[in-house]
Formats: sequence, structure tokens, C-alpha cells
Amino acid sequence: MGDDCAVLRLPPRHEVLMTTDFSLEGVHFRRQWHPPDSVGHRCLARGLSDIAAMGGEPRAAFLSLAVPPGLPQSWVDAFLRGFLTLARKFGVPLAGGDTAESPDGVLADIVVLGSVPAGQAILRSGARPGDSLYVTGELGASARLLARLLSGSLKKPNTRRYPAHFYPTPRLAAGRLLREKKLAAAMIDVSDGLSTDLHHMCEESRVGARIYAEMLPAAGGPANLRFALHGGEDYELLFASRRALPARLAGTPVTRIGEVTRGRKVVLVEAGRERNLPAAGWEHFG
Amino acid sequence: MGDDCAVLRLPPRHEVLMTTDFSLEGVHFRRQWHPPDSVGHRCLARGLSDIAAMGGEPRAAFLSLAVPPGLPQSWVDAFLRGFLTLARKFGVPLAGGDTAESPDGVLADIVVLGSVPAGQAILRSGARPGDSLYVTGELGASARLLARLLSGSLKKPNTRRYPAHFYPTPRLAAGRLLREKKLAAAMIDVSDGLSTDLHHMCEESRVGARIYAEMLPAAGGPANLRFALHGGEDYELLFASRRALPARLAGTPVTRIGEVTRGRKVVLVEAGRERNLPAAGWEHFG
Repeated sequence: MGDDCAVLRLPPRHEVLMTTDFSLEGVHFRRQWHPPDSVGHRCLARGLSDIAAMGGEPRAAFLSLAVPPGLPQSWVDAFLRGFLTLARKFGVPLAGGDTAESPDGVLADIVVLGSVPAGQAILRSGARPGDSLYVTGELGASARLLARLLSGSLKKPNTRRYPAHFYPTPRLAAGRLLREKKLAAAMIDVSDGLSTDLHHMCEESRVGARIYAEMLPAAGGPANLRFALHGGEDYELLFASRRALPARLAGTPVTRIGEVTRGRKVVLVEAGRERNLPAAGWEHFG
Repeated sequence: MGDDCAVLRLPPRHEVLMTTDFSLEGVHFRRQWHPPDSVGHRCLARGLSDIAAMGGEPRAAFLSLAVPPGLPQSWVDAFLRGFLTLARKFGVPLAGGDTAESPDGVLADIVVLGSVPAGQAILRSGARPGDSLYVTGELGASARLLARLLSGSLKKPNTRRYPAHFYPTPRLAAGRLLREKKLAAAMIDVSDGLSTDLHHMCEESRVGARIYAEMLPAAGGPANLRFALHGGEDYELLFASRRALPARLAGTPVTRIGEVTRGRKVVLVEAGRERNLPAAGWEHFG
């Protein structure tokens, strides 16, 4: 930390993975809803999830934090506690960063540097017609909670009861296993919502997809289908595989939700009827 | 750019160098003084200078940019033009980043990823008593111009006449040569002001220093000594060397300004008299 740059040694024949993510007050979190340790946790989780989606190992995190003049130091301390608790859980050192005063609102920019054996990063572009589509965990829990906050039906949530939203767990172990066993042909994390992220993968792979409403692991059950389809910030993994997979990988539930198709259409089958599935993922609550 | 992370391959047996820098409106620049292409140039130059200070090679840049709602698109376009022109000059691809709306003011966070042969990064901690201290280029030009802007004696500067402030050149070629030829035992870039950065190097190396006012390459001549001593944002290199060096390295002027001493005192010799030199570098104009 004492030098102009952080110096990091990677394992031999590894490539560098790099991801950066802004977390902005009013866009990604609100101070009246999100306790500071949750804000710190979530801002790092976003970056770790990007590393997971490539099948990589996180190696170091960097945090640039700008806070408004009146913000209590206790807020910053709790933010860092949330950030560092998650970092420690995955053995990721905080290797640098920057602090500044912001004119208004908290702004955090995080960088996660990871690595992957050369040539083995799982890209979005590898899906082929006939591949099965899978997701880890459940979908829509984060958006469902957010909808209740936005509508006012939930005012002061007990944050520990909603870990999918307040303390999401990036799927690093599952991502690593998929890469090591060469089980995923293409992968992306579900940060913008399944429909949008599935479109991203199909565009990069130049393929279409068919998914089935009845197969989706919707958090809270089938009545919450729209959250599972379009709700963002789940940080689950969506991937294409040529293999029939078990129900769990590295302890993480895995569900087959459909298949990759020829052509470029992305469709949803519900009660036996097929319709186009637009990219309608949520753009936070900005 | 289509994936969750950027994937970068480094040369074999290289280590990763990483630096992040905030550039904030009102702290690092003002929109009425700094044209947008200068803001873009300067925000990348800060990161490249950090890589130069380690003797490294820049490999990729990442830009996270938050702008207020009313900002004209032409401002952002010119900012990017300034950023990318400098990036191209040093062969550094813009490999990713993020954009967002800021509540107020422009905020840029840049990351530069570089590399250096394993074990050869030039740290701040390698200076030893008896080493000579050198700087590249001239010192104080940026702060001298800033003082004129702050005092109001200069209103609308012709920015091309003041490249040290508006379009500084990171000393990558000199830094690389110093590393390749093993000429620098310790190095830092002069971003906070010579006095402050010299203190940083001495602290990390657990040594003292003696520098000579008459030997300092003060921009504008000896009358500008205080800018040369304490003015920030010069982006020159300060380094300790066991060798007597020529007047130029990789085309860059190099000046001996003093020596590393035993003990922990940092002193200035002026007109034959020695006095303590406090770390009094400027903290921008925030």
C-alpha cells in the first residue's frame, strides 16, 4: 500500500480478469433502506460476481470511496466492515484505492482483479444450439424485496431476513467448478435480470434461447415469475452447458431452465404457449 | 468488452501493477478553467504516472465516469477524446469501465493496470544513505499556473501554452529505462509536491534526505522555488540512485538535487544554510 501502485503476483500461466463497478447512492442503494455494512457488502459482491461469471479466482480488491462532508464516520466504518467481512470470506485483500469528498451522496467505485488459467475464462460467446441453459440458486428474491420497499408495504426490513438483497453471496465456488470441469460453454451473472442477461449471452453467442416458466426457480414460488424473469441484482449464474448436470454443484443448487436454439429469438414457454421474451430487466430504482 | 470482466494476458513472469485515482470536479479540476479534453488527459495521466513510478508498462485502462444530468454530450465526447488521445500515445487500450449519473459534478475514477518483470518493480522503500536524489524534468510549473488561476491574475489561459498543467506527459520511457538498467533504488512520482513525496520515500526507506535549493530545476527560475518544493501535479519522477547519471535519460532531462542521508531528517540547503523541510505539498485546491 505504500507505493504508487499495488504489486500482485499471479500464478504462472494465468490471465488477468478485471471488473469495475460503481455503487451510487440513490441509484444502487438508499441510505434509509440499506444499512452501511450492507452497502459495503453489496458493492464488493457485484465485482466478485463478475469474477465468478468468468470462472475466475478473485485476487485483490480496490475501493475508491467519495462521501459527502456531513456523513458520520460511523457510517464509513460500518461500510468498510461490510466490505472487509465479505472480502475476508473469499480471501481477497483490499490492496488499494482512493478516498475523496463528494459534493452530494456516497459514491463507491470498486475494482476486483482476478485471474484464471490462460485460455480458460468462460465467456458469454460460447453457447451453441442444443446446449442446456442452467441457473444457480433462486431468481427474483432481491427484486421482490425491492418492490415491497418501493411500494411502502415494507418500511424497516429486518435485513438479515433478506440476505439475497442485503447480503448476496457471489457464486465463486460454482463458477470455479464449472470452469475446472469444463461444464459451462458460456456464462454470465444475473445482475440486470434474467431476461436482459439471457439476451446479452445470446447476442454474444449469436444464438437464440427457449426457457420454460414452470422450470424457473422463482423465489417465493410461481406467483413471483415476473421478478424471476426481470428482477436484477440476483448475482446468480446463468450458463449454457453441453452436459446433463446434477442438482447441486459445489453445494449450490443448479436448475435447468431451457435450451439454446438456432436463430436469434429468445422465447418463454408458459402453460404450453410460446411467446417472445423481451430484455426487460430492471435498471435498479434510479 | 462484451463479458463480465476484461481478460488480459501479460508477458510471462510479469507481475501486475494496479493503480486507481479519483478525479473530482471542484477538487482536481474546475469546468470553467479546464477544457474537457484536458480533464480526460489529466485523469489518465495520473494513473500512467503511477505506473511510470514503478518502472512498469501500462497494459490497460478502465474508466468509471459519473456525470450530472444537465452535462452536454459534447463535454463527455471531448473528455473521452482527451483520454483516448493520451491512451493511444502510450498504446494503452481502454478495456472497460462503467458510467452513471452523478447527483452533482463530474466524477471520474480511473484504473490503470500495468506490468513489470517479477521482482523488478521500483519501490519507494529502496533508498539507502549515500544514494543521490534525482528528478526528471522541471518542478512547479503546474502549481505556478494554478496559483495564477486561483488569484484571478490569469482568467482564460491558452491551455496549449501550459502543457505541464493541462496536458502533462507521464514519464513512462524514463521510468522503464531506470528499471531496465537498474539505475533507481527507489522511486515515486511527484504528484503531491516534492517536499511531501520526498517525505513519503524517506519514510518508506527509513532514511533522511538533504536537497539543495540551488540545484532544483524550478520551472520559471529560482524565484519560483516554493512551487518547485511544494507544488503538486508535476508528474515528474523523484528517484534515488547509486550511480552518477547523464543529463538525459530516454530523452528526459534528469537533475541531481541532493542525497539520501542517515537518520530521518529531511532538510533543504539554501544559500549555504540548512533547515528542516516539512512535507508541505499542496492538496489541490479543494
